[in-house]
Parts: sequence; structure tokens; C-alpha cells
Amino acid sequence: MPKVFGIIANRRKPQVGEIVDDVVNWLKGKGCDVLVWEDLADKVKRGKLVSLGEVGSECELVIALGGDGTLLRAARAVDDRLIPILGVNIGSLGFLTEVTINELYEALEEILAGSYRFEDRMNIDAVVEREGEEVGGFTGLNDIVINKGALSRVIEMKVDIDAHYLARYTADGLIVSTPTGSTAYSLSAGGPIVNPSMEAIIATPICPHTLAIRPMILAGEQVLTVEIRAGQSLHGEPEVTLTVDGQVGFDLASGDRITFRKSPRKTRLVLSGYRTFYEVLRDKLHWGDIRRNPFG
Amino acid sequence: MPKVFGIIANRRKPQVGEIVDDVVNWLKGKGCDVLVWEDLADKVKRGKLVSLGEVGSECELVIALGGDGTLLRAARAVDDRLIPILGVNIGSLGFLTEVTINELYEALEEILAGSYRFEDRMNIDAVVEREGEEVGGFTGLNDIVINKGALSRVIEMKVDIDAHYLARYTADGLIVSTPTGSTAYSLSAGGPIVNPSMEAIIATPICPHTLAIRPMILAGEQVLTVEIRAGQSLHGEPEVTLTVDGQVGFDLASGDRITFRKSPRKTRLVLSGYRTFYEVLRDKLHWGDIRRNPFG
Amino acid sequence: MPKVFGIIANRRKPQVGEIVDDVVNWLKGKGCDVLVWEDLADKVKRGKLVSLGEVGSECELVIALGGDGTLLRAARAVDDRLIPILGVNIGSLGFLTEVTINELYEALEEILAGSYRFEDRMNIDAVVEREGEEVGGFTGLNDIVINKGALSRVIEMKVDIDAHYLARYTADGLIVSTPTGSTAYSLSAGGPIVNPSMEAIIATPICPHTLAIRPMILAGEQVLTVEIRAGQSLHGEPEVTLTVDGQVGFDLASGDRITFRKSPRKTRLVLSGYRTFYEVLRDKLHWGDIRRNPFG
Amino acid sequence: MPKVFGIIANRRKPQVGEIVDDVVNWLKGKGCDVLVWEDLADKVKRGKLVSLGEVGSECELVIALGGDGTLLRAARAVDDRLIPILGVNIGSLGFLTEVTINELYEALEEILAGSYRFEDRMNIDAVVEREGEEVGGFTGLNDIVINKGALSRVIEMKVDIDAHYLARYTADGLIVSTPTGSTAYSLSAGGPIVNPSMEAIIATPICPHTLAIRPMILAGEQVLTVEIRAGQSLHGEPEVTLTVDGQVGFDLASGDRITFRKSPRKTRLVLSGYRTFYEVLRDKLHWGDIRRNPFG
Repeated sequence: MPKVFGIIANRRKPQVGEIVDDVVNWLKGKGCDVLVWEDLADKVKRGKLVSLGEVGSECELVIALGGDGTLLRAARAVDDRLIPILGVNIGSLGFLTEVTINELYEALEEILAGSYRFEDRMNIDAVVEREGEEVGGFTGLNDIVINKGALSRVIEMKVDIDAHYLARYTADGLIVSTPTGSTAYSLSAGGPIVNPSMEAIIATPICPHTLAIRPMILAGEQVLTVEIRAGQSLHGEPEVTLTVDGQVGFDLASGDRITFRKSPRKTRLVLSGYRTFYEVLRDKLHWGDIRRNPFG
Repeated sequence: MPKVFGIIANRRKPQVGEIVDDVVNWLKGKGCDVLVWEDLADKVKRGKLVSLGEVGSECELVIALGGDGTLLRAARAVDDRLIPILGVNIGSLGFLTEVTINELYEALEEILAGSYRFEDRMNIDAVVEREGEEVGGFTGLNDIVINKGALSRVIEMKVDIDAHYLARYTADGLIVSTPTGSTAYSLSAGGPIVNPSMEAIIATPICPHTLAIRPMILAGEQVLTVEIRAGQSLHGEPEVTLTVDGQVGFDLASGDRITFRKSPRKTRLVLSGYRTFYEVLRDKLHWGDIRRNPFG
Repeated sequence: MPKVFGIIANRRKPQVGEIVDDVVNWLKGKGCDVLVWEDLADKVKRGKLVSLGEVGSECELVIALGGDGTLLRAARAVDDRLIPILGVNIGSLGFLTEVTINELYEALEEILAGSYRFEDRMNIDAVVEREGEEVGGFTGLNDIVINKGALSRVIEMKVDIDAHYLARYTADGLIVSTPTGSTAYSLSAGGPIVNPSMEAIIATPICPHTLAIRPMILAGEQVLTVEIRAGQSLHGEPEVTLTVDGQVGFDLASGDRITFRKSPRKTRLVLSGYRTFYEVLRDKLHWGDIRRNPFG
Repeated sequence: MPKVFGIIANRRKPQVGEIVDDVVNWLKGKGCDVLVWEDLADKVKRGKLVSLGEVGSECELVIALGGDGTLLRAARAVDDRLIPILGVNIGSLGFLTEVTINELYEALEEILAGSYRFEDRMNIDAVVEREGEEVGGFTGLNDIVINKGALSRVIEMKVDIDAHYLARYTADGLIVSTPTGSTAYSLSAGGPIVNPSMEAIIATPICPHTLAIRPMILAGEQVLTVEIRAGQSLHGEPEVTLTVDGQVGFDLASGDRITFRKSPRKTRLVLSGYRTFYEVLRDKLHWGDIRRNPFG
């Protein structure tokens, strides 16, 4: 049973200060220590303020309060420590934050009683090589995305799978997603929903310039390699970026080689038991909504 | 101002008899004659019962009560007489029946006052030739569809536009839709929404077996010709069907040549003024729904 | 090393008789026995003619000569015996028949030398229950499809995953595909490519009548249940069919409950080593074809 | 019959200097004057070098040598003068440059004989208003695109049609395309092919974050208005751009209101008669390619 809790919250959400203070109060009343991310310093009255990294490294369970973006931040802070993260939404339901504020305390009771369940979610790694040298390494819970700038021309990408040549993709970019991320950016670009308990790598092109490219699902053990060839942008310089979970950006150069594979890191999500993945799918995406039949 | 009204209603809708009786009563109170489709004989107490054809040929305005299917039926009954049709939904909103029962009487007041607006919608014609002879001719308001049977193999279709060869389509079928029909079956098969006031022909393949085929929009004046080559079904005989507005079926044979073009017939829809096409789009299809942002 | 070979071939392919005779000759020259499917009786001069079932049950390795359909037939004949099948295309390359006639003899040399590799492919099972009783059980290597007839209205399907409610699908049908089948019918209906070595269940709707439904990938261990509610067809009776690998049909009734899960049966495919899955993807589907850049 | 020719060519194409010199020579031999874009100064030996604007304003017919991008540049140079443009591809076929170098001289013979045909293509206008003032006006032959930067969050766009509210689009961007542009960027984002002789406005969202948005086709007379609300990028500042025909960029700000409508400007394309739009579709996009049937 965890005794030291960390709290990471989105400072832009309404009444986030009061919500965090309440949670800190409640946990202290149960004899727990609480570390609060210092980004909330001006919002909260209670809890020990520490850096994001310290929240991730010092606590035994993290409570992420906000939207899915807040949980992605918490996952990055926790890194490979495999401690549980409880995602709580302030506002609208999220795929990673499906517990509501109202349900939070009951969930915490169960956690303190040691009776909660969790699910370890696959992460994806990307390693960037430039002229034979490794220049960057990244890990994401949702996705790692190769994307062109708004004023750049299309990117050409030579794509290999397990060292076998697949194809050249001419596109605005490529989303390499985990099953967890299949409900996020990959879905926007036309990707399928993939059950988040699976291990798989989803490669979804962004605006491909040939008709004969579709999203592709690889087994978790497969390795995807992408070599970039970028043209110039309207401003003269090519602009291609690697973005991790929509939060961390890294400038790519023409000729870079990025290798994607399943990460040894997992993210341990507390399962609320309040609702299934499918309920969130219906609620957030109106999945199969038939209240009004378009063909009446 | 119309003095003779026709009523076509969907007999499976709840309380349809009472609704029709009320409308007949109200119209008679205004000194109008009312012809009611005899399919409702056991449901209604009032109005002169006549055949569907007589409703279409004898009245000056048709009230279609039900869903979009009921309005399509009314359009076929009216044929090329260009008399106005008022679509009224019983139950959920339709693209062609966007007036509610509550709004109906106000709409009728305006119609009797001669102050209503209407929109003439394009129809699509299909002519079927077999061994050089014309064996069928059809007109639809929404769409005319070439479709294989459940146990049949794919259909091969040689497609020409204005007598120029376009391509061979290997698919489960082809939807040839008007702009009005773009919110119906064509949408299900991946077609775009086309503003219903336009004149255009939308050719949307059903489950094409090559990746490089997409929906195609032709100008209203263009002519689309499809030559069928069907393989056998699991039951031995090929099964390919032409379906008009989802209501009329015609068996096609391998070798048949179907020519699609804009029909001289229009369908005159009474515009309610209660809501725009875009409101129906938002309401029925959740178009651009952002109440819950999937990326929270 | 196999000593008894079975041959299943597509009798409609050109020169199939000569090809089979050559293979029989060659195998006999190596001291092997050869069982030939009796469907080829009027085409071949050599080999022992037996029923399809006997080919599947009596031999130690099956050679399937034709297209992917021929290999699917061979897989059904072999059933759960887990003996290797070598797919050889007559005509154009197939995903399951990627060996050419020219490469066949070299492949057979390796097989006789005992040095060939194989891959066991996941199959999918469907069990149909009607009013509480099991009325049918089916196994497919590519897919098992619920499909409406050409003159039928849409099907409503209540879909559950692992006994959790997912959604109601209003559609023309539902394709439940293995990874092997992801390059077949599921692709036509908008599904992703799934690496065929994976274990996963792909649920791809056919022409869904709501916008908010996409293909969904489940883990191999998950169970998908579909309850059918079909409306009437234009001919009066509803027409809904279950089709297995495009080859076996079964009439469904409104109210039927179909349970899909990973089959205990596997299909053992001989891997040619001549080309990767990705080469076939490029060759058959023009995957990512850039010979001509549409944006030149 | 034109006597003064302008030449605009892509200086990066192989042997472009020789090609232009040959054309200049040939035209001078016929007694014509030739104005060559000065961007080619170091590549060519002949012709009068002038600015891009002077090519557009001084000649009677423009020859655009390169790819579709070169023709788009020529169309911008010509602006609203409605003089004919002959698109000639160096390298691969384009939708706007479907004449080959080999066919060029025969085409020029016809032009000099006054016997050529042309087609006037619709252009699209965009006007940008910021705090009530017009800050930019643009015209495109293919498309005008609202696009977020690689490190920016999604854009929220309030979309109105003819001053009626359509929906809020949460997306990476929006492509507003002419029928001519339907084979370009809009196609990459999932848009349909629209016959280029039509007048229509195609609104194709880029990676929409809700499932219930599809490409939409408006009549040529309709007016599309988009109000931007952009979040911050990872670098702090929002980055949203308007791009015209992939060649001209303009920075948008949150709150900007962009009005799209059919332009009074047309682009007059010389029709070669060598091939139809459908041939280019088959050749460049493999439209309906059945040389290899994926279902063999």
C-alpha cells in the first residue's frame, strides 16, 4: 500500500487549487505524505512542493488531475519506475483519465486498502541517428510523430520493418502509436482503434500523397525504421519535427534515421472499475451512436 | 395556393393514424380536400382513400409523414408533376423530413397563405441496356445503386464518363447519388457531403478491391456509363441488383450496360425555414461535435 | 520430410492440367506419393484422384495451385491437422500464394531436404446460436463476414467484447478478420493492414450508417459477440448471411447471436523465402507507390 | 493567334536550359517574340529575360515547363489577364502539365494556327480579417490551406456557410480547394476527386479530432467563413499559417476570420487533346488499377 503520494495537475483547469488542496488534506488525514508539483505553487495551500522530476522519483503512486495530457506528463515524470498512476479528469472524460473527481475518494480508499487493479501499458521508443551517431532518444505512452512544418513541402520517408524494405512514404508525416495512443492522434489521421491492453505498433501516415497507403499494425516485437528526406520549406530551410506525446519536440534533419520499437518502459495505470474502455469510447467518440439514425 | 392535399405516411410509425386524422381534420376545416394513401386504410378515420399513384397525380401538394423513406416514396408517386412535397418527421429528424409534427400546422398556415419557399432537387436517371435493348429505366431522388448479393463474388465494372474510359472498378458495388443522397448511402460508403442545392453526380464505390479508388464528383451534365461483369455466387448464379432509393429493386445480368445521367424530373421540396441543412447535419450526424474533445 | 503430397488446384486457371501433371511427375520421380483433388479429373493424366477431404486428411503436405482462394480451400480441407501448405500462384501473385510456378521446384527440393521454414497462422472461429441453441460452427483463415443481401435494409448489430457492451452497429455488415485476412475483404472496407504473424481480431464494419465507427483491433484472446436484428428486405424476408473465407455461406436469422474468437486451429504455411510480405504488399497493392508522384 | 510567348520553367529540372532554348528558337523561327523568366538566366542562351511579373503581364500565351507547381506559379503571374497557359511536363505527368516535351511542338503548331481549345478553371479567393480590418487577400488555382505548425496544438475553427453556422472543427487544419485542386492536397487528406470543369468549393479537414467530420462540397456561389482559435505551440506562440497553392505563406493569428469564395479570376488552360483527365488519373494515381487484383 502506497504511503507517499505525488500530485500532478493541470494548472489551467478551473478550481484546480481547491481540488488539489482537498486531496492533500484527505490523504494527510489517512497518514500519507503528499508531494505536489511546484507548477501549482500559486494555486495550492497544502502539500510539499517539489519539482516534476521529484514527484516522479520520490512517490509511490501518482495522482494525475486534468485531462489525458496531464497523465502523459505524469507518465514521463515517473519514467521507468513502474509506479501506479491514477488518472482523474477535471472536466470531460479522457481515455487515460476516466475517473471523475466524485469517484476519486472511493478509488483512493481502495488503493489504501491495497485492493486496486492496474494495467501495464506498452510505451514506444524512438532513437534518432544522424550521420551514424545517436543524437536523441525518446519514449512515449501515446505516440511519437514525425511531422512537417506548416510551410514545408511533403516529407519523403523510406520505411523499413525488421530491416526489410516496406515502401517510400511521401506524406505530411507519420504517427507511430501504441495501442493506448490509438484513440488519440492516430485516430484523427484515419487509424483504427486498437485495444489498449495489446502490444502492437501502429504506423499511421498523415496525408499520404499516394492513395495506396493505409495504417499498418505491427507486432510489438517488430522494429520500424524511417529515413527522412525532406525538401525545403517556403522559408528556405526544411522543417521536420519529432513530437513525443504532443509534449516534447525535437528538430529532425534530412538524412536522419529514426528507429521505433517497443520500449522496455511500461506505464502502470490504476484501473478504476468505474467504466470500461468501451464506455469511454461511446461517451467521447459517440462510437456507433444510434440515438439518431442518419437513414431514419 | 393548393386546395387539394395528398397524405402519404409510414404505417409503422406510432400513432400515425391519429396524426393523419388530425391533419385531415385541420385541412378540411380550412376548406381543403384531402386524399389519403389507402395503405393507411385500417389506421385512419377520415380523408378520401386513394391509391399511391392517385395521391401523386391528383393532389396539389403532398404531405409525407414518417422518415426520409416516406418522402422518397412520395417523390416517386409525384413523379415529374413538380408539385411541392412537405416532409414531416414522426420520430427522429430526417434530411428530407426536417419539420416536426409541432411545426406542421404553422407550416401549413404559411402554405395556405401562399408564402412558403421551396427548392427543386435534382434527380438521377438510370437506363439499363441488355444486348443492345433497353430493359429498364429508373429515376431516384437519393441514389441508384449497383450492388452484389451477399453470396456473390465481387463485381467488375467498366466505368466510362462522357464516353471516355475512366477505369475498371472491382468492388461490391457502386452508388450513384444525387447531392440530396450524399447524406444517405453514399456517406456510409465514405462519400463526401455535397450541398443539396447543387447539380452533381456522385459515384461512390462500395468496398473497392483496389486502394486507388475514391468517391468521384461529376458535373450535373456528365454521363456515367457502367458495364457489368459479374462472377458467380456461392449458389451458382451471379446476383447483381440495381436498387433505386433503397425501395425498388431490379435484377441485373452480366453484360448489362447502365447509363446514369441527371433526370429531367425534379423534386420540389417545401423549405420549412425552421432549420438549415447544417442544423440537421449537426443533429443527425453529430457533425464536428465538440461537446467532448477526444483529445481532452 | 513429407513423402505423401496432396495437390489442390483451381480448375479454371489456364494450363492447370499440364502444371499439375508436371508436379506429379516430378514428385513421383523423387519417390513420393501424390494425391490429386478429383475436381481436376478431366484435366490431369497422373496422380491418384481423391476427394477434397481425403487430400486434406491423407497427405503430409499440400500444394495449393491457383490464387489465394485455392489456398483458403486447401486450409479448410486440411482443417486442424497442422500439416504444411505450399501456396503457388498460377497467374498473379497472392498474399497466400507468393511462390511462382518457376520457383516451385526449388521450393520442393528444399522441402524434400527438410530445410524449409513455415509460419502458423491464426484462424478465427464463429459459433452461431439461435434461441439458445448452437446451430452452426465455422472456422476461417481470412475472415468470417456478416453481410446483408442486396435487397435488404441495413442490419442492426449489438456488439459486445468480452461480455462488455461496445455499441450498436447499424451497417451493411461486419467483417471479422484475422491478421492474414487484413489484406483481403477487411482492406476493401477500410481496415488497416495487420502483420500476419500477429494474433489479433479485426472488426471492420461494412458501410456503417453512423460516422463514428472505425475498424477495431482486439487482442487474440478477446471474444467478440454480435447479436443480429435485421429488418425486412424488398422481397419481404430479411436476408443476412454468414460467409466464411468468401467460400461457405450460412443463412442467419434476426435474433441470432454469433460469437467470434481465436480458433484452436492454425494454418501452417510454407514460407518461400523468395519474397517478404512487404514485397507482395508493394506488388499487389502498389503500397506507397512513388514511381509517379501525384504532386509532381 | 498569339505572337508574344512567355516561358516560365522550373530551374531544378534536368536539361531545362536546353529545352527552353529549343522552344525559344522554334518560336523565333515562326516569327514570335519570347519572354523568358529571368530566374533561368544562368541556364538559357536565348530569349529576352524579364521578371516573373512581366512574363505574366506582357505575353499573349504562357508556356509553363516543369511540374504542376510550375503551372501554379504561372497562373499567379498571369493573375486575372485570362491569357492561355500551356502546361508541359519535364519528367512525370501532371494534372496541370499533361503535355510532354515531345508533344509540345505539335501543340504549338496548333496554337499558332489558332485551332486550339482551352478550359477556364475556377480559382478560389480568401480574405483575412483581423479585428475588423482586412489584412490579406489571396487567390489560388488549387487550394488555400489553414494549417497548424508542427509543434502547435490543434486549431479550433468556427465554420459558417453563407452566414449559417455549420460546426466547430477541431483539427490540424482545413483545405479549401477548387475542383482543379481536388487531385492535390485535398486528396491526401481524404477528399474526393471533383471534375475540374465544375464550379465548387471543397472543404476538407486535416486530421479532424472528431470522427463525425467529412469532406464537404459546396456550390460555387457559396461562401465559407472560418474563424480561428489557436492554442499555444510547444514554443509558446501559436503557429497557424495560410498557404496558397503550396507556394505563398501568410501567418494567421488567433481570432482571424477568413472568408473563402469563388474568385472572379479564372485560369485559362490550353487543352492538349493528347489525353483526358481520366487518363492522367489512371496514370498518376493508378485509379482503379486492376493489373493485379488484390483478391486474386
